[in-house]
Amino acid sequence: MCNMEVMCIVSFGRYTRPKFNLVLLIILQLSLHTVEGVWPLPQSFTSSTERYPLNPKAFYFGYGRQSAAQQDCSVLDAAFKRYFSLIFPDYTSDNLSVSAGQASLNAETVWGALRGLETFSQLVYQDDFGTYFVNKTEIDDFPRFQFRGILLDTSRHYLPVQAILKTLDAMAYSKFNVFHWHIVDDPSFPYQSRTFPDLSSTGAFHPMTHIYTQSDVRRVISHARLWGIRVLPEFDSPGHTQSWGKGQSDLLTPCYRGSTPSGTFGPVNPVLPSTYQFMARLFKEVSSVFPDSYIHLGGDEVDFSCWKSNPDVRAFMQKMGFGGDFTKLEAFYMEKIVNITSALKKTSIVWQDVFDYHERIPKDTVLHIWKGTPASYKEELSRMTKAGMRVLLAAPWYINHIAYGQDWRNYYTVQPLNFSGTEEQKKLVIGGEVCMWGEYVDATNLTPRLWPRASAAAERLWSDEKQTSSVDEAFPRLQDFRCKLVRRGIRAEPLHVGHCKHEYQGV
Amino acid sequence: MCNMEVMCIVSFGRYTRPKFNLVLLIILQLSLHTVEGVWPLPQSFTSSTERYPLNPKAFYFGYGRQSAAQQDCSVLDAAFKRYFSLIFPDYTSDNLSVSAGQASLNAETVWGALRGLETFSQLVYQDDFGTYFVNKTEIDDFPRFQFRGILLDTSRHYLPVQAILKTLDAMAYSKFNVFHWHIVDDPSFPYQSRTFPDLSSTGAFHPMTHIYTQSDVRRVISHARLWGIRVLPEFDSPGHTQSWGKGQSDLLTPCYRGSTPSGTFGPVNPVLPSTYQFMARLFKEVSSVFPDSYIHLGGDEVDFSCWKSNPDVRAFMQKMGFGGDFTKLEAFYMEKIVNITSALKKTSIVWQDVFDYHERIPKDTVLHIWKGTPASYKEELSRMTKAGMRVLLAAPWYINHIAYGQDWRNYYTVQPLNFSGTEEQKKLVIGGEVCMWGEYVDATNLTPRLWPRASAAAERLWSDEKQTSSVDEAFPRLQDFRCKLVRRGIRAEPLHVGHCKHEYQGV
Repeated sequence: MCNMEVMCIVSFGRYTRPKFNLVLLIILQLSLHTVEGVWPLPQSFTSSTERYPLNPKAFYFGYGRQSAAQQDCSVLDAAFKRYFSLIFPDYTSDNLSVSAGQASLNAETVWGALRGLETFSQLVYQDDFGTYFVNKTEIDDFPRFQFRGILLDTSRHYLPVQAILKTLDAMAYSKFNVFHWHIVDDPSFPYQSRTFPDLSSTGAFHPMTHIYTQSDVRRVISHARLWGIRVLPEFDSPGHTQSWGKGQSDLLTPCYRGSTPSGTFGPVNPVLPSTYQFMARLFKEVSSVFPDSYIHLGGDEVDFSCWKSNPDVRAFMQKMGFGGDFTKLEAFYMEKIVNITSALKKTSIVWQDVFDYHERIPKDTVLHIWKGTPASYKEELSRMTKAGMRVLLAAPWYINHIAYGQDWRNYYTVQPLNFSGTEEQKKLVIGGEVCMWGEYVDATNLTPRLWPRASAAAERLWSDEKQTSSVDEAFPRLQDFRCKLVRRGIRAEPLHVGHCKHEYQGV
Repeated sequence: MCNMEVMCIVSFGRYTRPKFNLVLLIILQLSLHTVEGVWPLPQSFTSSTERYPLNPKAFYFGYGRQSAAQQDCSVLDAAFKRYFSLIFPDYTSDNLSVSAGQASLNAETVWGALRGLETFSQLVYQDDFGTYFVNKTEIDDFPRFQFRGILLDTSRHYLPVQAILKTLDAMAYSKFNVFHWHIVDDPSFPYQSRTFPDLSSTGAFHPMTHIYTQSDVRRVISHARLWGIRVLPEFDSPGHTQSWGKGQSDLLTPCYRGSTPSGTFGPVNPVLPSTYQFMARLFKEVSSVFPDSYIHLGGDEVDFSCWKSNPDVRAFMQKMGFGGDFTKLEAFYMEKIVNITSALKKTSIVWQDVFDYHERIPKDTVLHIWKGTPASYKEELSRMTKAGMRVLLAAPWYINHIAYGQDWRNYYTVQPLNFSGTEEQKKLVIGGEVCMWGEYVDATNLTPRLWPRASAAAERLWSDEKQTSSVDEAFPRLQDFRCKLVRRGIRAEPLHVGHCKHEYQGV
């Protein structure tokens, strides 16, 4: 059993930091083999050349006597089995009963314990004769940022559930803890809603083969939970909603050419009461399907031209006294949506556009920076945190953009807190996110494009910046980590010329 | 049996063109479904909306009565089985005995027949109820260029044999016919030589897990042959040979710092008779292991600084009257190597550097252009063909270079014969090659980086340029072809937002 109170501590908050200590004390035999490293780098790490052989037959994970979590804690029981296989890939386990050695992992939460197991698994290596070893090591570790996310876009291309599950596995290996599921957008609406089944039956690429059923979503959430990963759903509106319109009439704004409808549609229609009735019902469902306390409402890239063309929208603008300022209409809409989700006890995340156009967004909303060069996103960080808002940084980690060569170096050298502001302001940066937008990505190429490039951002979000300031020093450790990913069956692409002891054997 | 004389016609020559005619005459039932297209586009293509259902239970391939090839022709017997499965992926074949319909494929050679089978397989489609159809179609087809190659680099990263075999399959789907195996280079020497086993036992990344045994090579060659693909081996020298030096002492030039050896080594040592004895024995082996009539000798990027530093090399230069012109030394070396392979009845291919430095290379050598912008490689095409040399173009198809977005468009819009020269000169361009250098590529990411980007070059090398001048018109057909690749189990990456009826289901 695991104390659910304890487990819940790990929800990322404004100032608190979950923390864990990993202390390995197994002592057996000297060695010259040096530890190849852990990715992302722990906050404090001391190891010696003393190494201790591990006998898979006599290796087990157990709960400490004083541990709040004990056997039957499903998250850790499952993690123990997983990590046994990850640590001893050659060994087919039948029982894990024989006791030997002494290693201890102290964590304040179950989720911290999961991170510690990952660290431990990376410390184990094999010598040339196949014997498993771990060096004497003491580690004290905690994440620098509480929100370490990856966005997958399942609208521009559909990703089979298996591809998502595999990505969750790999995320845990780099200590990512948030899966931002950009589940719907203009091109397709694969989420099969209980309340509005027409949204996917007409808005998905295919109503049966290219959808996520309720059971698919539950499977993703429960798989993620076992890896200590939260699932943050995004239902982006009022823009990016072309696919919504196929299954929900009167939801989108009819665009006009002159005085007649052109037959095309723009963003969600903000002037009809039916719009907010629909949204309230949709978000009520989404809030119960996705248990996370956060919900992403989008709000980016709203094109005003269709709203401008529509006489009903213009009449509404006049009635509301918005003049010709359509950002006020957008603000009106977003506030209504935020209020709907607030009433459902969810905290909203919105893209930066919502703040850029109108700063009167509710204070507990989290702002998500996606635009600009380092100079401009740093200014945005200053401005938002000065306004007392919590911020998530994605702009430097648009990993869907590819370039020839070692572009991971760019992701690694980001300094998220290197902006002008007080210490209090810096604490408002709750983390960062790697975005894999789906224009050119589906299950055929997702994994090699994501790994190990995303791992570079993972270390930046987890580790101490001063200890990880050298990209050249990180290189061999990341190469080694990439080979560990390959060994675990993740098609992580190479960083440069070279080889892994165990190459990827699939085709 | 198939007439081996006939089969051998397909070796690419200077002026002759193998040619085949594919005539489909099955006539059964009308339809509104339009043909989605063939990639690369046939030279002549007429289809109607008349469509004929195909019953997998009653479908078979057979030899025409007047065909020179008859049953027991192993290449076509194997191709018939393969293409049956490719055309009817849902159907588990047990027998193919029932006769029905009338379609005919006339080809001058077995290899032409293979291309025709590929074309036919792309014409078959399924309606929404799963019934297979083919539209009434007449095709007359032949390749624009005889040499349509893909280079894989197995030195910078080792590629498991399975990854090579899978690439050969995909090559045939785009009608590529040459696998240029850049098998060794500076980083590693994975070819396990019978004559010089030390080359791989010390020069490979690992002497057992990262090598190509004689049996591996035979497997690649025989698999390629069944797909109508030639295997062109490259043993690049005198540069790009660092890995060779590990297993063959005195082969590389010792570099000097002042008057003492620095401990590092440069290109192959051109002044020792032992060098040429070694090369003669190595190429004798290679010539018998790789049956193709062509052999690639490299010759690119020779760095003269180590030669310059070495007193023995300088003394040799003086003795030979080369003055300070090290290109003369390189020419001396390359001539000796070309003479070795000529004596083995092989035609040599060399990178353009060899021609750039000294034009007195034997006339039947093929020159391989890899450098420069369109302006500069066009000038090189002019210059080389004016000198009467046959040329292969690779420069615009360095597909290892990646960029965000639809870079396949750049590969598609290449005009290989758009250079200043006579008709006779243009005939000397025997084809082109897509190069996938291995700095950032191994089995984890090879397939999605190669496909369908390489297919863009494939159409340029096969099809009529005038009929394929519009990249926008090619786009939907290439998207459709990419889905066909995915359906066949090739992890071909998406070109843009969208979906395939059958998505890639692996992870």
